[in-house]
This record gives sequence, structure tokens and C-alpha cells, in this order.
Amino acid sequence: GPQDGQSSCQFFSDGRRKVDYVLVFYQRKQISVRGGDRLHRLSRSAGDGEVCVDLAVEVELEADPVEGEMVLIREEFEARLLEAGLEMERDTEVRVYGPSFTRLHVPWQVLSREAEFLKIKVPTKKVSPPPLYSRVCVKVNQPFQPNIPQLGHSTTKQLSHCFSRDKLHLYGAFYKYQPVDLIRKYFGEKIGLYFAWLGVYTQLLIPASMVGIIVFCYGCYTVDMDVPSLEMCDKQQNFTMCPLCDGVCDYWHLSTACGTARASHLFDNPATVFFAIFMSLWVATFLEHWKRRQISLNHSWDLTGLEEEEVHTITYHTPQPHRTRGRGGTHHYISHPTFGLTFSAVFGVIVYRIVVSALMAMSPDPETKSNVRVTVTATAVIINLVVILILDEIYGAVAVWLTELEIPRTESNFEQHLILKAFLLKFMNAYAPILYVAFFKGRFAGRPGDYVYVFNDYRMEECAPGGCLIELCIQLSIIMVGKQLIQNNVFEIGIPKLKKLIRAWKGKGISLEEREEQRARPPQQWNLDYTLVPFEGLTPEYMEMIIQFGFVSLFVASFPLAPLFALLNNVIEIRLDAKKFVTELRRPDAVQAKDIGIWYNILSGMGKFSVIINAFVISFTSDFIPRLVYQYMYSQTGTMHGFIDHTLSHFNVSNFRPEGSLTFPKPLVTPLPTPRYKDYREPPWSAEAYQFSKTYWAVLAARLAFVILFQNLVMFLSLLVAWVIPDVPKNISEQLKREKTLLVDVFLREEKEKFHLLQSLFSSKDQPSQGHPDTAHFRTLPLGLSQGLGQPPGGEGGESRARCRAASFSQFTRQMSMSPSNNAGRQMSMSPSNDATRHTAV
Amino acid sequence: GPQDGQSSCQFFSDGRRKVDYVLVFYQRKQISVRGGDRLHRLSRSAGDGEVCVDLAVEVELEADPVEGEMVLIREEFEARLLEAGLEMERDTEVRVYGPSFTRLHVPWQVLSREAEFLKIKVPTKKVSPPPLYSRVCVKVNQPFQPNIPQLGHSTTKQLSHCFSRDKLHLYGAFYKYQPVDLIRKYFGEKIGLYFAWLGVYTQLLIPASMVGIIVFCYGCYTVDMDVPSLEMCDKQQNFTMCPLCDGVCDYWHLSTACGTARASHLFDNPATVFFAIFMSLWVATFLEHWKRRQISLNHSWDLTGLEEEEVHTITYHTPQPHRTRGRGGTHHYISHPTFGLTFSAVFGVIVYRIVVSALMAMSPDPETKSNVRVTVTATAVIINLVVILILDEIYGAVAVWLTELEIPRTESNFEQHLILKAFLLKFMNAYAPILYVAFFKGRFAGRPGDYVYVFNDYRMEECAPGGCLIELCIQLSIIMVGKQLIQNNVFEIGIPKLKKLIRAWKGKGISLEEREEQRARPPQQWNLDYTLVPFEGLTPEYMEMIIQFGFVSLFVASFPLAPLFALLNNVIEIRLDAKKFVTELRRPDAVQAKDIGIWYNILSGMGKFSVIINAFVISFTSDFIPRLVYQYMYSQTGTMHGFIDHTLSHFNVSNFRPEGSLTFPKPLVTPLPTPRYKDYREPPWSAEAYQFSKTYWAVLAARLAFVILFQNLVMFLSLLVAWVIPDVPKNISEQLKREKTLLVDVFLREEKEKFHLLQSLFSSKDQPSQGHPDTAHFRTLPLGLSQGLGQPPGGEGGESRARCRAASFSQFTRQMSMSPSNNAGRQMSMSPSNDATRHTAV
Repeated sequence: GPQDGQSSCQFFSDGRRKVDYVLVFYQRKQISVRGGDRLHRLSRSAGDGEVCVDLAVEVELEADPVEGEMVLIREEFEARLLEAGLEMERDTEVRVYGPSFTRLHVPWQVLSREAEFLKIKVPTKKVSPPPLYSRVCVKVNQPFQPNIPQLGHSTTKQLSHCFSRDKLHLYGAFYKYQPVDLIRKYFGEKIGLYFAWLGVYTQLLIPASMVGIIVFCYGCYTVDMDVPSLEMCDKQQNFTMCPLCDGVCDYWHLSTACGTARASHLFDNPATVFFAIFMSLWVATFLEHWKRRQISLNHSWDLTGLEEEEVHTITYHTPQPHRTRGRGGTHHYISHPTFGLTFSAVFGVIVYRIVVSALMAMSPDPETKSNVRVTVTATAVIINLVVILILDEIYGAVAVWLTELEIPRTESNFEQHLILKAFLLKFMNAYAPILYVAFFKGRFAGRPGDYVYVFNDYRMEECAPGGCLIELCIQLSIIMVGKQLIQNNVFEIGIPKLKKLIRAWKGKGISLEEREEQRARPPQQWNLDYTLVPFEGLTPEYMEMIIQFGFVSLFVASFPLAPLFALLNNVIEIRLDAKKFVTELRRPDAVQAKDIGIWYNILSGMGKFSVIINAFVISFTSDFIPRLVYQYMYSQTGTMHGFIDHTLSHFNVSNFRPEGSLTFPKPLVTPLPTPRYKDYREPPWSAEAYQFSKTYWAVLAARLAFVILFQNLVMFLSLLVAWVIPDVPKNISEQLKREKTLLVDVFLREEKEKFHLLQSLFSSKDQPSQGHPDTAHFRTLPLGLSQGLGQPPGGEGGESRARCRAASFSQFTRQMSMSPSNNAGRQMSMSPSNDATRHTAV
Repeated sequence: GPQDGQSSCQFFSDGRRKVDYVLVFYQRKQISVRGGDRLHRLSRSAGDGEVCVDLAVEVELEADPVEGEMVLIREEFEARLLEAGLEMERDTEVRVYGPSFTRLHVPWQVLSREAEFLKIKVPTKKVSPPPLYSRVCVKVNQPFQPNIPQLGHSTTKQLSHCFSRDKLHLYGAFYKYQPVDLIRKYFGEKIGLYFAWLGVYTQLLIPASMVGIIVFCYGCYTVDMDVPSLEMCDKQQNFTMCPLCDGVCDYWHLSTACGTARASHLFDNPATVFFAIFMSLWVATFLEHWKRRQISLNHSWDLTGLEEEEVHTITYHTPQPHRTRGRGGTHHYISHPTFGLTFSAVFGVIVYRIVVSALMAMSPDPETKSNVRVTVTATAVIINLVVILILDEIYGAVAVWLTELEIPRTESNFEQHLILKAFLLKFMNAYAPILYVAFFKGRFAGRPGDYVYVFNDYRMEECAPGGCLIELCIQLSIIMVGKQLIQNNVFEIGIPKLKKLIRAWKGKGISLEEREEQRARPPQQWNLDYTLVPFEGLTPEYMEMIIQFGFVSLFVASFPLAPLFALLNNVIEIRLDAKKFVTELRRPDAVQAKDIGIWYNILSGMGKFSVIINAFVISFTSDFIPRLVYQYMYSQTGTMHGFIDHTLSHFNVSNFRPEGSLTFPKPLVTPLPTPRYKDYREPPWSAEAYQFSKTYWAVLAARLAFVILFQNLVMFLSLLVAWVIPDVPKNISEQLKREKTLLVDVFLREEKEKFHLLQSLFSSKDQPSQGHPDTAHFRTLPLGLSQGLGQPPGGEGGESRARCRAASFSQFTRQMSMSPSNNAGRQMSMSPSNDATRHTAV
């Protein structure tokens, strides 16, 4: 019962019946404009002629004429709730406008009936103390409401519970470890699984970060031993290179690119290859580990019996209108224009880079000239980042608009398709610029004398002399870190705060009367909770993490520190998410779920995709393969000495095309035999001048062979990892066996006792069975479902625990219905309590 | 009841109780040598201190001194059977030696108790006429027998049922379609699934064969338009080639290889690439289709509730000692020597080919010389085939020997590991020579002037001038067709027939007394069935099909007719298997199974492997890529003209190494500028004479790129196929929904009636409940489990059907135990029959 004033709000005015749901509707006789922006439709499910409507509705009027009809509909709705066995409490004073709250209490009978429909597993025998089952019970009490006509009014579920010790407890524990059982207890399985998944992911990021740091340190340590970068920095070698732009750019010495060459080595070294393989296996391990964790959770949350079909039935039984309207939650029916948006943005940034590079190169200021590359790269990446963030939001808005045009369907695979499409969009948005740098930049620039031009005047951009990998690395780190920082700070914290402020401000600005009224009586808990932001689904949370997972897995070959940054982000992310869920949002529905659904498939698909991406990054973006080929096919000494010379082709200045609109600079003062450029082409004096050389084809074959080798090796090892790690943890499978044995023992005992009973029954056939002690409990069996335990449950958690325990006993007894000597059955038959009794006890 | 004399053998001497199992033991006081070859051990399961032994044992004595102990053990065993509720009938006359048969009858109580343990699903409501559930019941009656000490005697399960209409029906229907429901009814789910799987596989082979025929026809049709083979056959071009062997071989004209070139084109044309992609998708479709079929079968056989854990429990509850001792069934603990056997066999055949080729080439007979290649290839393939067949048997024998050294464990994953290992061995055995031809033959032969020699004198063999693909094709077709023909005819039919003959002969040859005895009274059905071959598990059947699946999927790019041959084989195979199961083998245990277990994983793994194998066959074994490269990179006209010239390198005769032990022939009469050889190498006049040319590297890069493209494209398409085809067929999922709705309706009705009942109960609390009509049936509920239906079941099928229907009603009633107005419950409560009653009715 209500022990203190704080939790009294959780109960009806009688202080006994608990408030399970709160219905809100607007009386809008006078004020008919307000709230019009939250106009939604009742969903209608097509299942076998029944129209099912979600339990809690926020009823709004579209216009005054339908007010009367609305009242009728509401009355019918409430009548059906009562018919389904719910109990109801209205505000004592009748208000003519503003939100009205109707509290619902779900009695024990209804709870157990619904629990039976959903076949919720409850423990029959437990060696360990029984886990807390309260929230399942809250979830399962969604009755279904047929025959509500589909008219111009909306349904919004609103849950309002007191901030009780529960929440503080949850928040207080987040600093140390994740109390997933408590999260599941309070928020339901679906959100519990999200936090559990986030926990497993973050936990597994720790070894990945550590290995990443080691790989990075290896790069730092060996940078002074790396022959190619030493050769590039060697001013003795003095390679004169072809100009980087037409007309205004001069010939330049390779040794000026010493810095990027050294930086490149930090990320482009043999350890990176090892790291890429390691991370691919890490992904496989992560997926397997999560499967195990999921099965463990399923077991400890007693979801093992929740079959696929049952889940379908839940959806069918009480269809949930699609309610995630949040940013990123509802990109569906993505049309080609939106994809075009991303590609044109990427292309726009490329053009920006080309043009700005050319313009800056033409600047007379030598300071500007020398900083061209750094300035252009940095600004371009930041522009990319901003574009990504803006497009993310635009896609969200477009999706909301598209969703509101449609009447949302109720099927569960609707959400799946939606997520998949949203994922593809966000994926392209986040990775398109990175994919461009990794695989396309500099590949279509042509060669000296035959450059590729865009808009007639501007040469296609090339990679830095140190290789494209360092640019990929910069791009990746800035986008990853920037996106996470900005999205975490601005969107995860700022926007909800802002929304809350706006809500509060709106609530204040309505009318003076109301405010007076509010001042007159202290606001109930449901009034306070109503000001919170509605829960908008887990999709944005998952989406953010999945995109991050992409940074960690897809391009990890080019940026070994990605897991570290992801880890740092997630440690904060868990806290922020927890804070948001507990303090910023209305309490979400507890939704039963056995797994994380489509997200697992996306993760797994991403893992597969990461193998091929990493293979291509290593073999085509990094210099790993050319170095190997040089060392084992061309080097005279078997060392890397001479590698830079080997990668540079010769050019004859006289071959600069004369018809070009821009003039090329004259040779430097010293007579210049042939400037160099980075490519494998035949020298000018060859019969096939400037054609790809044999080395080019050999390196290409080696690159491709490496891709095949890497991909198949990693796929094989991943399969091996998945095969070696059993899906079901050993302790769980053993426990299942033990439980099964116990159950068989019980059955066997029952069997024997049954035979004895039968004998005694047949022997006493003619006697009146009324007096027979063994048959007495059969009469009382039907009570099992409709009554609680004899002993009084205490407090909120205690009550729901007791409810569930009673349900467990009821089910157990049902299963044991043939057994006359079942203690549980006897116990139940001895307690003649009905609801009233139970609540008196409370 | 026994309507005719034929089926009387199925019953105890009272003609009522059906014979469910037959125990056989040998009285061997006098004859202690006979049967010693069938010496096995009782298995002991380590489950929680209980020692469980399978129901039916064939007890044999190792030596006379333990005879007394044996009798004790047998008596204890039989006592435990009786304790478990089984009924027993012994032979009336006591025989002092020879096999003794003890018949077991499993009463209805035991059946239903075990059905309850295994949670066998039975229909509660059926719109369609109820399916036949008799054989599940036969299966579930395996009680468990603890505490049988593990001594020197053996267990062999022997089932003996009359040949009834069932079997004839099964055999008669095989010509048209597979009566999987009847197979399942008679043999149990596991064998039913095998035949269903075989059916799906064979059915899907039809489109594959058709496409294969079309591809082959395309090859036949275009053979006269194929420019490369026309060029090869063109005597105008007159390419003079380097000799094929040292010393005795002459220079030769390429146009003499015209035949193989034309034959090559039949299998090596662009349609083959399409076919390889098609077949990879076919594999994906097959796997998905089978998944659907499996779910359909699970549904129609009511196995949906059979969870993974339950299956474990079956294993745990009544552990089955590993009983597959057949050929191919039990290769476990495969040691390296056995693998070495395969490789040395392959190597031996290679050496044979090299040596015989050289010897035949040295033969003075020109007839012999001209037939070298045909003779050597044909004989070598036949040797390969014979070696494969012999090694298959040797591996089987080795495995049996190894298995008998070990005490077989009882866990189900033991069988899985066993199958996996056996599969790997058979796989290598069957495919090693094919893999050699596809990927290794001719790759290490060196070049003119620098040949690779084995044993100093013999050059490594090269591929035919038409390419290795035609050799691969010959190898594949002969091994595939030959293996199947020989294994089907000799092993599947011949060996069982032979075994039966030996058994019959042994049975006859024992003693005169016995034969007289046999003549005196007509042999019972169990005596006749005892002469049949024991069932040795499905492993050999699956193994044969899986290896065939490998021929169809792995190398299909080189032999488009493989599906056709597989189809032809399987149409016969289904009949032969059915005939064998029905007439040659003792009736196997009906084993419950939800899927085909590890075989699905093997199929799926083979599908994955086939993608990479086919990619390599197309890009490296066939001439597809070199042709493409020539057409688009080198051809002046954009056609294939000049391709043959392009693929042949030049050689300078003076570069033949002088130190070779064999002398090369002098140039032909006409002055020979440079003979040609098939390779991409620099000409003798180049600076890098005989090094790989740029074309070599370009073609290599193209080959590798094709592998990557093909592999990833096919993997992506396969994923798409798996994603597009839903696992659960639509009609099944709809039916599940409908059933769920019906169930919910029933529950709701019960709920309401329960409330009414409660009210009436409380109102009549003080009255004696004895007379109350609504509560009356609760008293009789415990009877539900131990009694059948009121109406008499007829015949064998009818009886078991009725048993199951009764079980269904009993479970239904149990589930509905709260419902006072349940008709089924009422019906049961009104029938006071016990077993005796039921059997009287029979």
C-alpha cells in the first residue's frame, strides 16, 4: 500500500488500486486550435475483421461539430475497457477544457489472462531467489479494443508513473555497471536488450582499442626505420616531380612531402594488415558473444519459450500503431531524390576542393600556396561533416513528412523495412565521402600530358604524395569524432532539453484560469509526467551505434584508433542514454522482445561488408602490396631501398599537350631531363610510352590476389569463430538440462501418486467424493486463475512479484492438474481470497 | 483386432495386445563360438548418476562362466521393463540355445506418459481431417532403464513388424510421388525428413538439368561459330608447336588438336559462366526451399513445439547408443595417415600418367603414339575411380575398427562430429583428383628449355592443347557417373542382398535340431524379420547424396550436364532406397527429428565453397578470361580473330638446354624459325626473354578481378535469395495465426464460463459439490491420462490413430482443465473404460 506521500500518486484515490495506465484527452469546447499539430489517426488492423486499438489514447477533436461524436466514441471505448475487466478512475471535478486524465487499474484477473495468452514463462521451481518480474506484468496488460471507428482523432500512449526509488537506483548504478535486470524490470525487455547490447559492444571495444593502440604505437615506433619514408625525406635523392596543377604550379621536390609520408607510416604499416584481420575476427566474435549474451538474457528473463509465432501473435493481438516519429526513426519510402542528395553533396565537396585548390594555387601569396593541401583538406572535411549532420536531419524531416502522408501499418516487418531503408540512407550519407577518398580519389586523375579535366579547366584531384591512406585517415577521424561529439551534445542532450522547455513554456502560456487551478491544488504525478518528452523508439539510438560500428569495422584498416574513439564515446553514451531515458522521457511501454531484431542482421551484414572493404583498403588504398611486390620481385637487395624510385614514372616535358588552355611552366633553371610522377607507366623512351608498365599489371594482380586471399581467409576464420563459440553458453545449457531433469522427476512422482489415487478412487467409487481428501482440490482448481496467493504482498515491487508468483503457481497447478498431492495446488485451494482480500492485505 | 491370419503375428498370444518390440537373446550354453563377431558393449550415459540403457537389447554371452550372471542381468533388466509398465510375453517352450524372442507390449499409460515427457504436440482443433499420428506413438515408448552394469554383452535393437499393407502401399506409391507422411508414419520423422529432403533435392534438380542441357546445346550449336577453335582447326595457320615430350617426341602442328578444341568449346563457352552463376543461386534457392519445406513438415507433423532443449532431453532421457556401424557411417578419429592415403593415391595416379605417357611416347608403334593422350587419360581416370571406390570402403572399415576400439558416447554432437569428419574424408577422396586436374595440372610444367622434371627423367604433365577444362570435364563425368552406377548397383543392392544370403545361409547351417524345429512350427513374423539386415543409420544415404551434391555444385562450371546425371541417378536412387528400407532392412526405430541436422550445415558450407571453386574454374581453368582480355585489350578488330596466335609464345630452338639427359629432336625438314608453346612469355628476341610478358600479368589481373567480382556478386545474390524467400511459407504462417486466434477465442470463452462457474461455486459453497453438474468432471480429470476413447479403435493403424487421438483429447482436456463445459472433457469423463475395456473393443 501507499507507505509514504511520494508514492501515493501511484494509486487510485482509495489508495489501494495501482494506476497502471493513464488516458489523456483534450476537452476542447472553447479552445479548438491548440494541439492541432498533434493530429493523428487511429490505426486499424486488418486482422480477421476485428479492429484493434491500442489501450491508451489521447483523444483530440478536429472540430467542434464532431465533439458529440467524440464523446460517444470515448464512452464506447471506455465501456469496452470496463468490459475487458479494467477499472477506471476519472478526475473528480469535470473540466471543460485542457487535458483530462483517466487512470486505469488492471486487476489481477486481466493480468493473468493476458499472461496466459502470451504464454509468459514463470518459474515453477527455483533454487536461486526468484528474479523480479514486475514489469512483464505491466506490459502484458494491454487488452484489445475492437470496433473503434477510424475518425479524426489521435492515439498517443502516455505512461505516467512516479519517479520512485527504482529510477534513482537505475541512474545511481550506471556509473559502475549496467543493471540490465533492473532496466528490463522497469523498461521492459526491448530496452533492456538495447542496453545489454550496448554493454557487450562497449565491453568488447576495450580489447579492440587496446590492440588498436598497440598497432598505432608500432607505427610510431617504426617510423624512423621505414625505408620508403626515409627515402622520401632524403634530400639527396631529390626527385623532381611534375607540377600539381596546370599553368601556375611549379615543379616540386618530393622531399617536401616528407611530413605526410611519415604520418602515413603511422597508419600504413604491416601491423595494419594484422589489425584488419584481427578486427574482422573481432566482429565475428562480437556477434557470437552477443548471441550468447542474448540467450543468457532470454534464459534469465524466462523468454526461452517465447516462440516466433507468439511474437507474431502479440503484434496481431494488440497491434501497436507505428509510433516512432523521431529524427531518424521513420525514413520510409526513401525515394531516389534523397539518395541523389547525398551523392550530389559528395560531388559538391569534391568540386569545392578542386576549385579551391586551383584558386589557392593561383594566389600570389607564397604562404597561401604552401598551405593549399592542408587548408583544402581541413575545410573540405569540415564541410563534409556539416553536410552529413544537416542531411541526417533533413532525411529525418523528409521521412516524418512521408510517414504522416501514409497511414502507418501495424505489422512488425513494416518497422524492419523502415529501419533497413533508414539505415541504407544514413549509411550512404555517413560513408559516401569516406568511400570516395578510399577508392576513387586520384584514380581518375589521368597522367601528365593526359590529365582528366572537369568543367574543362579544373584537373581531377590527386592523392597526397604520401598516399591516399593518410587522407582517408584524416577524413575518417574527423567525421567519426565530430559526428559523435556534435550528435551527442547537440541532439541527444540539447534537443530534448529544448523540447522540454518548449513544452513547459506552452503549458504555462495557455490560460490564466488553468494556472490558478494548478496553483490551487498540487499537480498529480501524471500532470508532471505529461510534460516529459514522449518516447520515440530505440531506432535513433541503435542507428547511431550501428553507424559508429561501421566506422569501427569498415575502415579500421586505415584508422586503428577508431575503436578507441568509439569506446570513449560509448562510455559517455551509456550514461547519457540512461539519463535521458530516466529523466527526460515519459516512461516507455515495456515491450517484450527476444532479440534485437533487424539490427542483428544489419550488424552481421556490416561485418560481411567490412571484410571486403578492408581487403580493398589494404590492397588498393595503402602501399602495402606495392611494397611487398617491390621487395620480393624487383628489389636487387631484397630490401626496400629504391622503392620510391621504383614507384615514380618518368615524363618527358615535351609531351605536355600543347592544346591545353593553361600553359605549363617552363623547366626549372637547371636543365631537367625528365620530371617524375607517381604511377607505374612505361618511360617516354619506350615503344609503348606512357602505357601501363608490366610492373603495373604485376602489382594489380598482387593487389587482387591479396583481396581474394584476405577475404576468403577472414571469411573462413569468421566461420570458424562462429563454429567454435557455441551459441548457447555451457552453464545455460547445463542449467536447462538440470531444470528438465527436475521437471521429469516431478512428473514421475506425480505419475506414481496418480496411480495410487486412481486405485483409491476406484476402490471408493461408490462413496461420495465430497469427503475424499485427495479429490477435494479438483473442485477448487478453477479458482487458481482468478486469485492471488494467500499471503499478503507488500509494496509495489512486492505486489507485482507476488502477482507473478501467483501466476506461476497457477500455471504450475494447471500443468499439474492431474496431481492430487501437489503442494502448490493445495496451498491455492486453501486460500479462498479474491481480489478484495488481496487488496485488503495490501 | 487381428482380422486375418497375416497380421495375427503382430499380437501376443491373447490376440489383443500388440507386439511393439521384440527382444532377442542367444542361449549359448552349447554353442559359444557363433555370433562372436557381433560383440558389442552396453553404453553407459553419464547423466546425473543414472545409467540408462536402451530398451531393446540383443544379449550375447562372451564366455560360459558369465552365463549365470547374464541370466541375472537379463532378469533385472526385464524386471525393470515390467516396473516401467511394459507387458511381456516369452516363448512358451524354453530353448536351450539359439535366438530367443521376448515380445514387449507398451500399454497406453506408458505411451501417454512418455508422450507427455516429450511434449508431443497433438491437434486440439482441426478443420481438415486429422493426419495419421500412429508412428510417433511407437517411437515415444522407449522407457529408460537404469543401473544395468556394463559388461561383456551387446545391445542391438531389433524391430520386427509384419509386412502389412503399409509397406506395400509405400513401395507401390514410389513410382509416382513420395508419400512422406506415410514414410514418417511408418519410419518416424528422421527417415521421413531424409526422403522429403531427397524429394526436394531431386525436384529442384529438374530445372537445373534443363538449364544445363540448354547450356550444353548452346555449346553444340555455337561450336562452328567459335573463332578460336576454328583457328585451331585451320590448317592454313599451321602453328608448329614444341614437342610434348623430351627426346622421342617430334614437333607437331596445332591443327592436330582440333578435336579437343572443338570438344572444349562444348563446355567452355560464355554460357558456362552464366550457368555457374545460375547454379550458385540454385544452391541458395535449394537451401531456402528446403528450409521452407522443413518448416511445412514441422507444422504438418506437429513438431513446431519441439524445442532444441527438448531434443537434448530426448537424448538425455533415453540415450541412444551409437548404432551406425555401416560403411561410411562411422569414420571418426580420422588420423593423418588416412588423409595421406588419399593424397598418395592421387599422386600415384599422376605418376602413373606421367610414366605411361612417356613410355607410350617412346613406343615405336605409331598407332600407340597417336593414342597416347586418350589412352592415358581414360585409364588414369578409371584407376582413379577404382581407387576412390576402394578407399571409400577402406575408410569405412578403418572407421569401424576405430569405433570398436572406443566405447561410443551417447551425446548427439558425437554423431555430428563423426559425420563431419567422415564427410571431410570422403570429400577429399572423391574430389582430390578433380581438384588436381582443375587447379594444378599443367601449372608447374615449366616452359620449353626450362621444364620441370619429376624423378629426374619425367616431365610434369601438361594440359591438352584445348585447355584443362576438357580434361576436368572427362574426369568429372567418369568419376561421377561411374561412382554412382557402381555404388548404386554393387553396394546399395548387391551387398545387402549378399548379407541377407549369408545370414540365411548361417541360419540354415547351425544345427539339424533347429532346422527340424523350424519345420515343425511355422516361423513367427519375428523369426522372419530377424533374418533381415539391421538398419545402419541414414549416414551412408546422406553421405552419398552430399557427395553427389558436390559434383553438382562445386564443379558445375566445367560440366553443365552434372545436374542431369544427378537427376537420373536420384530418380533411381529414391526407388532403390525405398525398396531397401521396406524389404531389405529390419524396421528402423522411429526417431523424432525436427531437421536434417549437421547435413544442412554441410550443404550450406558446400554451397559457400562452390562459389569460390566455380569462380576459380571459370577464371583459371577455362579460357574465358584470356578471350575477354584479348577481345577488349589486344584485338585490333574487336573480334576473336588472332586469339590463338596471341596465346602462343615463341621459342628459339637453340635455347633447349644442352645438359638435359634426353636429346631434343632436330628441327623439322623445313627451316623452323621459332616453334610455339602455349604461354604468355616474352619472345626470345626480347631483353627479358622467356620472362612472363605484360599480357601474362594483365590476364592474371583480369582472372583475379573476375574471381573477386564473381564471388562477391554471387554471395550478394545468394544473400538476396535467402532474404527474398521467407523461411516460413505464407500459408503456414497464416495458418499458425488462424490457429492462434482460434485458441485465443477458446481461452476467452473458457474465461467467461469460468467466471460464471466461480459465481455458481461461491453461491453453492455450502452444498455438497458431489451433485453439482459443473464440477463433476473435475473429479474424473485424472482419469484422462490413463484411459482411451470410449469408441473402439479398429485395426493396427486405426488403433494407433485412436491412441493418438485419445492422447490429443487428453492433452486438450488438460489444457482446458478449467473449463467445465468442455465437450471433450465431458466425453472423457463419461467413458469409464480402462485398458482392458479398450482392448475388448479391439
